[in-house]
Amino acid sequence: MTTRIGFIGLGAMGLPMSSNLQRKGFAVTVFDLDPAKMDEVALLGAARAVNIAEATKGQDIVITVLPATPHVEAVVLGDDGVLAHIDDGALLMDMSTIDANGTDRVAAACAARGVGFVDAPIGRLALHAQRGESLFMVGASDADFARVEPALKAMGTDIYRCGAPGMGSRMKLINNFMLLSTAQIVAESIALGTKLGLDIQTMHDVTGGTTARNGQFHILMVNKALKGDVEPGFTIDLAFKDLTLAMNAAAQNRVGLPMGAAAHAVFGGARAKHYASQDYSALLNYACDNAGVETPRMD
Amino acid sequence: MTTRIGFIGLGAMGLPMSSNLQRKGFAVTVFDLDPAKMDEVALLGAARAVNIAEATKGQDIVITVLPATPHVEAVVLGDDGVLAHIDDGALLMDMSTIDANGTDRVAAACAARGVGFVDAPIGRLALHAQRGESLFMVGASDADFARVEPALKAMGTDIYRCGAPGMGSRMKLINNFMLLSTAQIVAESIALGTKLGLDIQTMHDVTGGTTARNGQFHILMVNKALKGDVEPGFTIDLAFKDLTLAMNAAAQNRVGLPMGAAAHAVFGGARAKHYASQDYSALLNYACDNAGVETPRMD
Amino acid sequence: MTTRIGFIGLGAMGLPMSSNLQRKGFAVTVFDLDPAKMDEVALLGAARAVNIAEATKGQDIVITVLPATPHVEAVVLGDDGVLAHIDDGALLMDMSTIDANGTDRVAAACAARGVGFVDAPIGRLALHAQRGESLFMVGASDADFARVEPALKAMGTDIYRCGAPGMGSRMKLINNFMLLSTAQIVAESIALGTKLGLDIQTMHDVTGGTTARNGQFHILMVNKALKGDVEPGFTIDLAFKDLTLAMNAAAQNRVGLPMGAAAHAVFGGARAKHYASQDYSALLNYACDNAGVETPRMD
Amino acid sequence: MTTRIGFIGLGAMGLPMSSNLQRKGFAVTVFDLDPAKMDEVALLGAARAVNIAEATKGQDIVITVLPATPHVEAVVLGDDGVLAHIDDGALLMDMSTIDANGTDRVAAACAARGVGFVDAPIGRLALHAQRGESLFMVGASDADFARVEPALKAMGTDIYRCGAPGMGSRMKLINNFMLLSTAQIVAESIALGTKLGLDIQTMHDVTGGTTARNGQFHILMVNKALKGDVEPGFTIDLAFKDLTLAMNAAAQNRVGLPMGAAAHAVFGGARAKHYASQDYSALLNYACDNAGVETPRMD
Repeated sequence: MTTRIGFIGLGAMGLPMSSNLQRKGFAVTVFDLDPAKMDEVALLGAARAVNIAEATKGQDIVITVLPATPHVEAVVLGDDGVLAHIDDGALLMDMSTIDANGTDRVAAACAARGVGFVDAPIGRLALHAQRGESLFMVGASDADFARVEPALKAMGTDIYRCGAPGMGSRMKLINNFMLLSTAQIVAESIALGTKLGLDIQTMHDVTGGTTARNGQFHILMVNKALKGDVEPGFTIDLAFKDLTLAMNAAAQNRVGLPMGAAAHAVFGGARAKHYASQDYSALLNYACDNAGVETPRMD
Repeated sequence: MTTRIGFIGLGAMGLPMSSNLQRKGFAVTVFDLDPAKMDEVALLGAARAVNIAEATKGQDIVITVLPATPHVEAVVLGDDGVLAHIDDGALLMDMSTIDANGTDRVAAACAARGVGFVDAPIGRLALHAQRGESLFMVGASDADFARVEPALKAMGTDIYRCGAPGMGSRMKLINNFMLLSTAQIVAESIALGTKLGLDIQTMHDVTGGTTARNGQFHILMVNKALKGDVEPGFTIDLAFKDLTLAMNAAAQNRVGLPMGAAAHAVFGGARAKHYASQDYSALLNYACDNAGVETPRMD
Repeated sequence: MTTRIGFIGLGAMGLPMSSNLQRKGFAVTVFDLDPAKMDEVALLGAARAVNIAEATKGQDIVITVLPATPHVEAVVLGDDGVLAHIDDGALLMDMSTIDANGTDRVAAACAARGVGFVDAPIGRLALHAQRGESLFMVGASDADFARVEPALKAMGTDIYRCGAPGMGSRMKLINNFMLLSTAQIVAESIALGTKLGLDIQTMHDVTGGTTARNGQFHILMVNKALKGDVEPGFTIDLAFKDLTLAMNAAAQNRVGLPMGAAAHAVFGGARAKHYASQDYSALLNYACDNAGVETPRMD
Repeated sequence: MTTRIGFIGLGAMGLPMSSNLQRKGFAVTVFDLDPAKMDEVALLGAARAVNIAEATKGQDIVITVLPATPHVEAVVLGDDGVLAHIDDGALLMDMSTIDANGTDRVAAACAARGVGFVDAPIGRLALHAQRGESLFMVGASDADFARVEPALKAMGTDIYRCGAPGMGSRMKLINNFMLLSTAQIVAESIALGTKLGLDIQTMHDVTGGTTARNGQFHILMVNKALKGDVEPGFTIDLAFKDLTLAMNAAAQNRVGLPMGAAAHAVFGGARAKHYASQDYSALLNYACDNAGVETPRMD
C-alpha cells in the first residue's frame, strides 16, 4: 500500500525533497505559506493542503522542514498544529536544523500524544537534495526508523543513524560547527597566504596533498567565493544561527570552546556588514578585506 | 655523471630522505652530530663527513634539514659553515621548516656568494619520508629547480613549485597553519559531541560524508589519539613553533587572525601541561579533559 | 501617606533591600518561596504574603528581584502573577538582571495593562545592599521615575537614569560585560607575571599607579582570590549567565565581540571544572592553574 | 659632586626626561640622531655629543631610551657602542620598553664588563614625563638602585622596585598587557552599548561607579577617542609591539592567554587598516566601525 506523506515546508530543501518523494511513488500532500511552491510539487501529482490540519490528517508520516526552532514548535505544538490533527499511530519526522532542546520538547510531546517521532536533519546542499543525494542524520527508535527508511532512501543516499530521538539534531549541530569553523580557518589561511604572495592555485594544490585537505577549501570555496560567486547557498546569517546552536549547547553542557567562540565572533562581525546575506564562503572575502588584499580567484 | 650530494641533518625526516637518495644512485655524504645516525646511512654506501666543511666541499648540491631558524643560520652562515666551503657553482637546498625571513636571509647570502638556493620544506609525515612519498613545497628559479628536481623525485612523489626562493617556506607556513588550527576545531567538535552523547563512530562517518570532512579527523586522529596513541609524530611543542611562524608572519604583514590567535592560545595552554611532548592529535585529549568527558576511542 | 510596597524575591539582594525599605518607613509586604527569608523582614515589621496575589493587591509599587528571565516572566506574566492582581494605577519595578528582550516584553505587558513600569537592575555587591549603598541603573519615564525615586534612595546611594524602560537592563548588561571580561584580563596578567617571577604586591602597586588600574584587580581580587577566599559573592555560573546576556544581545544586534567571545569561552571552560560555584575572582586560580603556577596571595 | 649623565635617545620620553635632569642640576650630555632634539636640551645647558662614544666616556651613569630591542642591543653592545666606551665603575640604565630576553642579554654583558646595570621602563604618558611625574618600574640590585635613585626622582614621582635586573622589563610588559587588553574590552563594551541605544555619558558614569571602573575608559578614552582625538600618544603599532612582547613571553614560558590572544588579533587587525598610526584609544573607533555605529563623543 502506498505510504501517505504530509510534507510541511517547501523551502530550498523541502521543495526538491518532497518532489523526489512524489516522483518515487509516495502519495504526498504538501503545505507551504507560498502557493507557488505548492504548485511546483502539485505539477508532479502531489496534493495541496490549505492548512496544517489538512496536511496532517490521514497521513502515515508527517514531515516538517522549517527554518528554526520557533517555527517547528509553532507548527507542531500550536493550537491548530500537527499534534492536534495527526492520526493515532502516525509518525512525525522533523528534518529542520533546530536547537536540540526544541527537538527534545517536540519528541516528548509526540511521546505524550502516542505518535512516533524521528529527527532527521539534512546534510549537504540544495544541489544534492535536487539529485536525491542528501545525507540524513537520524535520531529514532528501531521501530520508527523502519517506518521512515523508505522515504529517506527516496530523498537521499547516505542515511546515518545517530541514536535515540534528539541525536540527529545533535549530530547536525556538531557537523555544522566543524565545517563552519573550518571555513573560517581556510579563509584566514588564504588571506594570509595571499598577503605573503602565494598563488591561490599553489595553496589549493599543496593543501590538497597534505592532511590540511578539507571540504571547505577543496569543495566549497573553489566553487563559490574563489569563483567570485557569493550568491547564497547558505547565508552567513544562517551559518551564524547554526554556530549559535553549538555555542548554546556548549554553554548548557558546561563546555568552553575557544576556537568556536572566535568563529562565532567572526561570523557575528561579518553579520554587521554586507556579508550577512551572502554565502558563507564569503568569509574569504571578509578575511581578505580585513587583511587588505584582493580576494584571489580560481576561475 | 653521478650527482654528489652533501646532506646535513639526519633527524626524523633527514635520515630516511638521505637514505633514499643513496639507494637511488646519488653519491651522498652525510653529516649529523649523532654518529649513530650517520652509521645508518653509511650502511647503504654513503660517505660520512666529520664536519660541515667536509660535507660541503666538492658537492654539487648541499641539503640541510634542521630543526629551526637559528640552526639553519648557524650551519649555513656560520664562520665554518656551508657558505664558507661550498664550491662555486654548487647549490644549497634547505628543506627545514623555518621562518620565511630566515629563508630570505639565507637566500640573499647564497646570491651574494654566487651559489644557487632552493627552499623546499617537507609535507606529510616521517612515515611518508621512509616510503619516498613525501610532498615538497619548492621555492626556486627555473634553473635551480631543474638541478634539484631529480633529487626531489628520489625522495618524494609530490613536488609543488610555489614561486621564487622563499615561497616554499611561506607555503609550508600556510599549510601547517591550516592543518593545526583545523585539528583544534576537530578536537572541540568531538569533545562537545561526546558530551552531547554522540558516538565517535557516528561523528566520524557523518562528518566524513559532508564538507566537514578533513584530514585532521579522518586521517590523523583516527590513527593517533582516537586509538589512544599520543606518541609524537609531531609534538605539540613543534606544532606551536609552526603556529608561531604563522602568527609572526601575520604580525609582520599586518594581518589579524582571530581563529589563528585562539588556536595559538590553545596550543600555548596545552604546552603548559603534560601534552607538550605528546603528538599534536592529543589536542583531543586536552579538549576532552577540559570538557570533563573521557576521550573517545575508535580501535 | 506611607507608600505601600510589595516586594517579591528575598535573595542575596532582595533581603537586605526590602529590609532597608521597611526600616526607612515604607509599608512593605514581602513574598518569597523560603519562609525563613520572610521571617527576617517580618521581624522588622514587614507583612508576609502567602502568594504573589497577596503581595501585589493594594500596593502602590511592586518590586521584583528574581534570578533570571523565566522567573520574572512567570511571576509577572503568569496566570496568577503580578499583572493579574496589581491595582490600576500602581507600578511594577523589576530590579532583576535579565535579558533586555524579557524586560521589553514585561514593559509592553505593563503598558497594555495600564500600569507603570521601571527596570532598575542593581550594581555592586550584597555587602553594599546591606549598607543601603547600592547603585541602580534605571530605565523609566520621568513620571514613573518620580514615583520610585524615594524607594531607590532608601536602598542605594547612586541612582543613574539610563533612558526609557528597558535601558536599565541594557546598562547592566554592558557594565557586567566590561567588568567580567576585565576580570579575566587581570587573571591572565597576574598568572603570566607570576610565571615571570614578579611579586604580587609589585604588580598590584605598579598597575595601581598607571592607567592599568581597574576595579577587578584593585577592589575585587585583593579582597577575594588574592586572600585565598573564593566563597561566592558572585559565582562563575552567574557571571557566565551575565556574559551570555551580552553575547546574545551582540548576536541579536549584529555585533561581533572578539574579546567578549574569548571571555565567554574561558568562563564556559571554568564552568566545566570545580570553579563553577566559586566566586568569579577564582578566574585567577583557574588562570594560574592553567599556567602551572601557584595562585599568589596578598594577605 | 655633580653626577654626570650621558643620555642617549631623545624621543617623546627621552627629550622631556633629559631636560628635567638638566634642569634639576645633573650634568647631562645628550646624543640623538636628530640634532634638533639635542638643541632643545642644549638650550637648558646640556652638552651635545657627536656620537655614542662621546656620550658615554667620563659619565657616571649612561641612560638609554630607545624604541625597541634591536636599537638597544646595537647602541649598547655594538662595536662602537656604550660598553666599548663606558668608564669602569660607571652604570648603564636602560629605560626603553624591550623584550625581557634583550634586557637579560644587556644585563649579562654589563656584568661581564664589570659595570652596573638597571632596567627602568617608564609608565604613564609623555605628558607626565614633561611634568616630571613619570612612574618607573625598576629592576636593580640595592647598590645600583642607590646610585640611580636621585636621577629617577628628578624625572618621576613614582618609583617601584620590581626585583633584580630584568624585572623592570617584565613588570612593564605585564602592565601594558593589562591596560592594552582592557582598552579593547572597553572599546567592545562602548560599541555594543551604543548599538543598544545607551548614551555615552550614562555608560561612563555608571561604570565609573562600579568595579567596572578602569583607567582605559575613565582616564584614557575620555581624553582621546571620546573627544574625537586620535592623534597618537601611543600608536596602535607600538601597542601591538608591547602586546607582542607579552605573547612572546607567554609562549616562551608555556602559558596560554586566551584573551591576550584575542586582543593581539584585534590589534593586528587594526594595524591592517588606517588605525595603525593612530592613538591606541582609536580601538574604540575600530570597534564602532565594525559594529556599524558612530563612535560616540563626550566633548
